[in-house]
Amino acid sequence: MEVVRLVARVAVNGFGTIGKRVARAVMLQDDMELIGVTKTRPTYEAIIANRDGIPLYTVDEKQQKQFSEQGIKVEGTLQELLTKVDIVVDCTPGGTGEKNKKLYEEAGVKAIFQGGEEHEIAGLSFNAFATYDHAYGKRWARVVSCNTTGLIRTLYPLDRVFGIEDAFAAIIRRGADPAESKGSALNAVEPDLEIPTHHGHDVRTVLPWVNINTMAAKVPTTNMHVHCIRVKLKKTGVTARDVLSLWDQMPRIRFVSGKHGIKTSGQIMEIARDLGRHSGDFAETIVWEDGTGVEDSTLYYYQAVHQESDVIPENIDCIRSMMELERDASRSIRKTDRSLGIIK
Amino acid sequence: MEVVRLVARVAVNGFGTIGKRVARAVMLQDDMELIGVTKTRPTYEAIIANRDGIPLYTVDEKQQKQFSEQGIKVEGTLQELLTKVDIVVDCTPGGTGEKNKKLYEEAGVKAIFQGGEEHEIAGLSFNAFATYDHAYGKRWARVVSCNTTGLIRTLYPLDRVFGIEDAFAAIIRRGADPAESKGSALNAVEPDLEIPTHHGHDVRTVLPWVNINTMAAKVPTTNMHVHCIRVKLKKTGVTARDVLSLWDQMPRIRFVSGKHGIKTSGQIMEIARDLGRHSGDFAETIVWEDGTGVEDSTLYYYQAVHQESDVIPENIDCIRSMMELERDASRSIRKTDRSLGIIK
Amino acid sequence: MEVVRLVARVAVNGFGTIGKRVARAVMLQDDMELIGVTKTRPTYEAIIANRDGIPLYTVDEKQQKQFSEQGIKVEGTLQELLTKVDIVVDCTPGGTGEKNKKLYEEAGVKAIFQGGEEHEIAGLSFNAFATYDHAYGKRWARVVSCNTTGLIRTLYPLDRVFGIEDAFAAIIRRGADPAESKGSALNAVEPDLEIPTHHGHDVRTVLPWVNINTMAAKVPTTNMHVHCIRVKLKKTGVTARDVLSLWDQMPRIRFVSGKHGIKTSGQIMEIARDLGRHSGDFAETIVWEDGTGVEDSTLYYYQAVHQESDVIPENIDCIRSMMELERDASRSIRKTDRSLGIIK
Amino acid sequence: MEVVRLVARVAVNGFGTIGKRVARAVMLQDDMELIGVTKTRPTYEAIIANRDGIPLYTVDEKQQKQFSEQGIKVEGTLQELLTKVDIVVDCTPGGTGEKNKKLYEEAGVKAIFQGGEEHEIAGLSFNAFATYDHAYGKRWARVVSCNTTGLIRTLYPLDRVFGIEDAFAAIIRRGADPAESKGSALNAVEPDLEIPTHHGHDVRTVLPWVNINTMAAKVPTTNMHVHCIRVKLKKTGVTARDVLSLWDQMPRIRFVSGKHGIKTSGQIMEIARDLGRHSGDFAETIVWEDGTGVEDSTLYYYQAVHQESDVIPENIDCIRSMMELERDASRSIRKTDRSLGIIK
Repeated sequence: MEVVRLVARVAVNGFGTIGKRVARAVMLQDDMELIGVTKTRPTYEAIIANRDGIPLYTVDEKQQKQFSEQGIKVEGTLQELLTKVDIVVDCTPGGTGEKNKKLYEEAGVKAIFQGGEEHEIAGLSFNAFATYDHAYGKRWARVVSCNTTGLIRTLYPLDRVFGIEDAFAAIIRRGADPAESKGSALNAVEPDLEIPTHHGHDVRTVLPWVNINTMAAKVPTTNMHVHCIRVKLKKTGVTARDVLSLWDQMPRIRFVSGKHGIKTSGQIMEIARDLGRHSGDFAETIVWEDGTGVEDSTLYYYQAVHQESDVIPENIDCIRSMMELERDASRSIRKTDRSLGIIK
Repeated sequence: MEVVRLVARVAVNGFGTIGKRVARAVMLQDDMELIGVTKTRPTYEAIIANRDGIPLYTVDEKQQKQFSEQGIKVEGTLQELLTKVDIVVDCTPGGTGEKNKKLYEEAGVKAIFQGGEEHEIAGLSFNAFATYDHAYGKRWARVVSCNTTGLIRTLYPLDRVFGIEDAFAAIIRRGADPAESKGSALNAVEPDLEIPTHHGHDVRTVLPWVNINTMAAKVPTTNMHVHCIRVKLKKTGVTARDVLSLWDQMPRIRFVSGKHGIKTSGQIMEIARDLGRHSGDFAETIVWEDGTGVEDSTLYYYQAVHQESDVIPENIDCIRSMMELERDASRSIRKTDRSLGIIK
Repeated sequence: MEVVRLVARVAVNGFGTIGKRVARAVMLQDDMELIGVTKTRPTYEAIIANRDGIPLYTVDEKQQKQFSEQGIKVEGTLQELLTKVDIVVDCTPGGTGEKNKKLYEEAGVKAIFQGGEEHEIAGLSFNAFATYDHAYGKRWARVVSCNTTGLIRTLYPLDRVFGIEDAFAAIIRRGADPAESKGSALNAVEPDLEIPTHHGHDVRTVLPWVNINTMAAKVPTTNMHVHCIRVKLKKTGVTARDVLSLWDQMPRIRFVSGKHGIKTSGQIMEIARDLGRHSGDFAETIVWEDGTGVEDSTLYYYQAVHQESDVIPENIDCIRSMMELERDASRSIRKTDRSLGIIK
Repeated sequence: MEVVRLVARVAVNGFGTIGKRVARAVMLQDDMELIGVTKTRPTYEAIIANRDGIPLYTVDEKQQKQFSEQGIKVEGTLQELLTKVDIVVDCTPGGTGEKNKKLYEEAGVKAIFQGGEEHEIAGLSFNAFATYDHAYGKRWARVVSCNTTGLIRTLYPLDRVFGIEDAFAAIIRRGADPAESKGSALNAVEPDLEIPTHHGHDVRTVLPWVNINTMAAKVPTTNMHVHCIRVKLKKTGVTARDVLSLWDQMPRIRFVSGKHGIKTSGQIMEIARDLGRHSGDFAETIVWEDGTGVEDSTLYYYQAVHQESDVIPENIDCIRSMMELERDASRSIRKTDRSLGIIK
């Protein structure tokens, strides 16, 4: 049986794009302690982990030798790491979660999976606005993917306040992350031929009653997903101003405006850089204020999602709920956001 | 008063991306004669026009000298060209049509404008499927833009056969043409913040009764626009197979399939190259057969539009209708397509 | 022993980017007959081969069934194809040539390999300017890669006429071909860390006495390699005009000029499209006339190479030499170029 | 006459890519005070300046109104700002420096120009390694461009220790900065047809005795320039290890290695993000350790330069030298680097 602790001892399994960000975010929490992270290859990220005092573990013992040969300090294996923690955030590549779950079961630790895994792995899909309470004290949860998280952030309040008759999103996906060495097709658009795409289904793992369908296509950019969203509202007479006022009250939604010169996803990321955010990350869902309009009770809006970082605060809140560190979702969200510099 | 001729004498004003293709297409028609094209600068395209025996005219006399200095042969000015033709296809940059219209009026020639101009310039927006008959014998017409043409090609038959309750398209626009030296933003997605975008309105200049709205975003590619389309059909029980069968009967719609390895817009353009199409152009609207699906009487499909060429056969049909060279739309379409090698 | 034939019977093993172009080029020769091509997967290219009457063979019998299931007609296996031909052009992926060579040996056919294989596979590296005579009547040859071919075209005459003291080229490589679905890194430059790169060595397999070194980096484009070249000439007093006059006399070198609006590799490819070249290909090495300069007996110039097509005429000449169809290199080059529409 | 002050009062004229970084860097110095920056348009960057307490000035009074209308606080005009400072860093668009110089002369302030201006504007081109002493107490200086700065950083020590016989660099330029809304050509390489390019000349404004020539081409990326460099050394027997040891002792040179997974410019920038550098900037010249080699006394190496930030520490050192805040170049460099987190 799990005991409520004042400080949750956290492991991060997988130190890639998401894992390294979750690890840094955990280090910034006063109610969590980062016990260690795992890496399978002795790349520069391992060198930086050493430099920053992040305890490194390998998945197996054989790898340990490779790290030593590169002069990289390793504390032990994943198995050893799991004996020291209350909860593990699984940031391994999509589809490997099922295998890892067995290890976590044996080690008796709680675990959070990412959106690359199916809902069924945890039986609970997490978004801080919508399912914080469901996750309270649970053993398993899954933080939904970056696109799904971005969609829920704006759709959830719309549904609560105005009611969603039906929603449709066309997702323009970035082709690769900035540091991926093999990208998507150059100079080409690649639609996701599975129709409608899984993103709508994934929103419904969190908001089962919302009638949403999606399509998606990959484009040769590295910095953000952009969503073209159409929502038929149940309530009539709603204006763009009403919608923007509603979103303005929500955390993790931020406005930009073409009138202030922000016309592209690249320019949005520049704001994050100017704000001094770590890694130039932008964890909020970004909505174009002047790209939001209502016609005949139908809302049209564009939003942009930073694929590398928007799930990071969600993972922190998910730890807090599962570890029973905070009963109230709003308080956890506020605490997380302040620690990460996510301020309106 | 215009006299019906067996062979229409055609001028093309503007020899850029669209103009050079219209000129070549006119040269392939047995009921049309290309009298001349205009260019404002002595670039390599002018050299190729000389080589290919296309009579070149400049807009004013001053430019003639610049051409001569580069050894490029020029026949005269636009004003002189207009005295020799029955009809001019205006392919000048968007927004300059109004000014040109005055010249055409004075010269007493018919004129076709492109989609960069407003509907009002001609009072008649042309698509060969939908408004061929309206254009018959008319003085002015406007061929709608590449995106609008692409949308009408698939929506028109859907509306006629199954009825369209409401339609929505998210248009992923190519950022620049292959030979443009200044592109759109690199590594960024740029949404069109005018909400909903003008493309839906533009479809309605041809199909006024179709309830369609659109959003759009530019991405850093050069080869095709890709549309994510959702259509609520009036008729129930329609299957994807029914929709594909309908489209299969239509000219200027062509299927590709992810199962045959065609997953991106770049791979579609490769087919045009392999087919030996001039310039590697693909004038058809391209639909992903396995990216077309129906759920709850709602049709989802992806299509791709080659921005440089899909309006070319439309311009040819428009000339034929305005010049009363052929009464029947289907016969004109067939004649045009055969001449351009657009064969299923 | 091979008998000299009036018409060489040719097989193309591998129907990808290079193979499909070699096959089409062979079909245009009056002294060659395309007996068949091989494909391993039933993609759209196989469908087009059927449509164009190109006899298709699979590598093994198992594949034949997959093709039949897709309604694609197949004539037999590679083994069967080899019994019907005098020579095979091996266009399989780099590194598989060694294995294939055994099949060709057993079948008693001559074979041409591509630049993805090592020089040693054939013992003879081919360029039509430089080693046509060496290949005459030979059993094996290797046509050097697109970059190497492009370099030799301009360096060979320089060396013959002015003498090369030392040469250096920085090769800016296209990241992927237009139809490749997995590109190189997006938004990144990737240098080839093997220093100096193999391209210089590869030039010396054809011109062993030329002192050349190279560096290279991949960039996210699909249409051409661009070379920045510096050559110290032995002869003093040579001017840019002298160099351009020399190149102007050579086949397969073509000039473009920034003054005529051709400033980018994309704009060069547009010329090929405007010229109506099949697939929009540009088999010549393209030199910027106004990007060529001499300072202190050192020549600087930029050239662009269309990676998909510049080796195609070389393969045709190589067949002609190996099959003893034509004794004289210049006559073969002229014949090949005329058949492919490569005219100055 | 200028009086030596303990704290230099600094203005930054122009708050774009370079200006905003210089301003932030000045704020981090204990011997400098940022008095204000100028902006011409009320964009989001102005909003962030307000938020961060950076005093904003407009160029003229008319602009002030536009800022007020957007709720952005402005302190006055450039003219007023100039009365309050000792030195101005001119970060206005290239080519406008000459006009501005008159204003600075009238106001009696010292000024630093950027590499977009000609050497002659200041008569002194600055690099902290090479010309710190020359700038001491001077009224005017010009910090050379990002590419030139990057080249000097590695060439200067080579020349001092081994001697440079002759050097050549091919510069693969990023097409646009991440937040530019109009990029260079998409999917194209654009060579700089001025042969040899100005970069070599620009290096010689700092190191007049170094025999260097350059060529350059723009590619569609946003994050770094990459240089392919060949240097014939005067000293014989030098090894790659010798060169790397030398550079290792120099500040502002940093190594990366393909062996640690750093193969692209995108992956280099990822290191800066992981290190938590502000804006994800990388002010050092980055050299590929395993992309450095020597053959026959000729050194080949690849380096990458972050175009947005590599001149920032140079501007700080330049202020310090011109304002006579520190006599010793090395001490200034160390002080600057520590303040900006540029640590090996």
